[in-house]
Amino acid sequence: MGTVGGGTFNVLQRNAAEIARRAGRGIDVAQIATRHPNPACNIGVTPTTDDVFEVVNNPEIDIVVELIGGYTLAKDVVMGAIANGKHVVTANKALIAVHGNEIFAAASEKGVMVAFEASVAGGIPIIKALREGLAANQIDWVAGIINGTGNFILTEMRDKGRTFEDVLAEAQALGYAEADPTFDVEGIDAAHKLTILASIAFGIPLQFDKAYTEGITKLTTADVNYAEALGYRIKHLGVARRTGDGVELRVHPTLIPADRLLANVNGVMNAVMVNGDAVGSTLYYGAGAGAEPTASAVVADIIDVVRTLTTDPNNRVPHLAFQADALSDLPVLSVEDVETAYYLRLQAKDRPGVLAKVATILSERGINIESIMQKEAEEQDGLVPIILLTHRVLERDMNVAIAALEALDDIAGPLMRVRVEQLN
Amino acid sequence: MGTVGGGTFNVLQRNAAEIARRAGRGIDVAQIATRHPNPACNIGVTPTTDDVFEVVNNPEIDIVVELIGGYTLAKDVVMGAIANGKHVVTANKALIAVHGNEIFAAASEKGVMVAFEASVAGGIPIIKALREGLAANQIDWVAGIINGTGNFILTEMRDKGRTFEDVLAEAQALGYAEADPTFDVEGIDAAHKLTILASIAFGIPLQFDKAYTEGITKLTTADVNYAEALGYRIKHLGVARRTGDGVELRVHPTLIPADRLLANVNGVMNAVMVNGDAVGSTLYYGAGAGAEPTASAVVADIIDVVRTLTTDPNNRVPHLAFQADALSDLPVLSVEDVETAYYLRLQAKDRPGVLAKVATILSERGINIESIMQKEAEEQDGLVPIILLTHRVLERDMNVAIAALEALDDIAGPLMRVRVEQLN
Repeated sequence: MGTVGGGTFNVLQRNAAEIARRAGRGIDVAQIATRHPNPACNIGVTPTTDDVFEVVNNPEIDIVVELIGGYTLAKDVVMGAIANGKHVVTANKALIAVHGNEIFAAASEKGVMVAFEASVAGGIPIIKALREGLAANQIDWVAGIINGTGNFILTEMRDKGRTFEDVLAEAQALGYAEADPTFDVEGIDAAHKLTILASIAFGIPLQFDKAYTEGITKLTTADVNYAEALGYRIKHLGVARRTGDGVELRVHPTLIPADRLLANVNGVMNAVMVNGDAVGSTLYYGAGAGAEPTASAVVADIIDVVRTLTTDPNNRVPHLAFQADALSDLPVLSVEDVETAYYLRLQAKDRPGVLAKVATILSERGINIESIMQKEAEEQDGLVPIILLTHRVLERDMNVAIAALEALDDIAGPLMRVRVEQLN
Repeated sequence: MGTVGGGTFNVLQRNAAEIARRAGRGIDVAQIATRHPNPACNIGVTPTTDDVFEVVNNPEIDIVVELIGGYTLAKDVVMGAIANGKHVVTANKALIAVHGNEIFAAASEKGVMVAFEASVAGGIPIIKALREGLAANQIDWVAGIINGTGNFILTEMRDKGRTFEDVLAEAQALGYAEADPTFDVEGIDAAHKLTILASIAFGIPLQFDKAYTEGITKLTTADVNYAEALGYRIKHLGVARRTGDGVELRVHPTLIPADRLLANVNGVMNAVMVNGDAVGSTLYYGAGAGAEPTASAVVADIIDVVRTLTTDPNNRVPHLAFQADALSDLPVLSVEDVETAYYLRLQAKDRPGVLAKVATILSERGINIESIMQKEAEEQDGLVPIILLTHRVLERDMNVAIAALEALDDIAGPLMRVRVEQLN
């Protein structure tokens, strides 16, 4: 009964009448497993236990709500509840992204549901939109801001010219970022969520280990400003795209045109764009974390499960949107096989001819330059930043070009590379 | 088999395999009622008829999809299908907004579903988000851009400085606007959709006749520009809000802060914001019209209905989100009881002291001025525009103040009044 558990309890209590008017029956909390009572909750006479397996084995309980987090105890709770024939609602993105295939197989075997709306983008009903609302479509791509901490940091860097390190320290002080911020700023949390979105968008098994994950720790305020000058914003996106060869599954900083709605999602807010062949582009925006926004999704799942208690288990919305025996073996592509446009920043020694050499290296590899900025005024230690936007190119070809650029005597240190997406 | 019917047929055919992988079974078009074959469709061997009641009475058919539009034949088809025990999917906002209470009562009696996702905001799964995804929340308000034609006109007026009449003529030529554009530009179409959204948000019967409806025909390019200078955009919004006294249900031009996502929804696109007590503010964006975006919602509804063919009719998602016997009698408020901030534009005869008189009239009625602009440079025919933003005030009080302002000798002609919403 931590943050989300407390929020879930409070929403169920506060909106009990409203929820019963919708669901057609009351939903009672039968038992709470918790080590410490949550001071934000008035649990009244609700029975508690400090042994979570008492809940798992409680014959009075229809639905076990797992809000522990992590892969170990949470997994035992979820698998135990399924084994006991109970439905499960969870907010645990890491558990679903890493062990979801095993969990859903066990659940299907037992004819129970495992609902996980709260695992991606908090209160935004994006799982429902993808699995049900857009079920008529072949989904072409999904792109989202699905980590609030990262978006808060990038928003502050842009709005106030602050450095990454400075904003991260504040985010930690405000409680947005964990003491160990690796999961947030290195993109692991976003990759968990993207893995789930990609599976339900394309009907493929969960394959977190194949996601390409790049964080925002190397971005400088200068990059944010150069992007702005070029008409773009930098966002930390999860992108899943279906191509003729397979599925792209990648989390990385991304330049997107400043006039896109997604570019204007600021602070800790989340948003997910989904493009389908019939509907075109759609977008879903809201709070991606927090006690009550997450509880909103947990409780919606509970209501959904209550509604399906009287359904035929073979005629429910499948866990991964597609029937378990109809998943696709479309491979997840290596990031080297991904084609995007690029933003490149080089530190050039201020000699005549360096621009020509750079252009030649790119052009010899078939990489076309979309625009170029040379910032003489920002010369520092004899180095002048050159900023390039390229047309679309395969990542493996760009890697070769970057190695050649970095080998030039006229270029100091490693260059900065950020992928560019138009998101039309 | 017009625009949406053709789109629905084509999506069902093109994505048949994808849909079957999701739904766990194929979905066949058993019969089409149409007077003229749609040239965009290859209907192959699908049986057709020019008598729509052949479909209604066809014993092979489980689900009747009504894509005729209007209140007359469409109503007979829907009521006939229900009487025959068939489920119904419809995209008909006018029919649902005006006759929905009667239709849903008949459907509940017969234990069949009437699904209407496509009736609001085309391909955006906003009905599903409100009825199911946010079911844990007490919904506080809904505000949306739910008429693409109106938004296209306002976007062009702002981006290109064009007049209302000029853009309307183009929208008609492009096919965005009907030859008789009344439903779009006077807000009737938006009021149909808002009526539906309000019912499922608050659990009240459909009450289209109580919606306040004001169009965009009086807006000038100058108003659009003044709003911009004040940091706002003008959008034609449908707003439904729950207050202590009842429900506000109103469609009118609205100033919203330029940095809100909703202010940045341009062209023919739609978006709906929903604010719930647990989730906070969320937003849903996409194409609000067009053959395939609308078909996306129609087909999603068909899949939903197919899934519930084996459910207990008493344990489904209720038509208006709340159980039919648990609807609220919360009254729809008169627009005079609505409190908003206001944008006012007056044409002042350029005499000393007019500003003081205006300020006095407002202040005597307890109306506080947030900001004021006097555009001396734009004097025309001896008249100077004065633009005011007020704090929040009851509409009935503002009406009295406006009458007093218009009675001033120093003010020429009627003043322009646009409501202002912050949408936090």
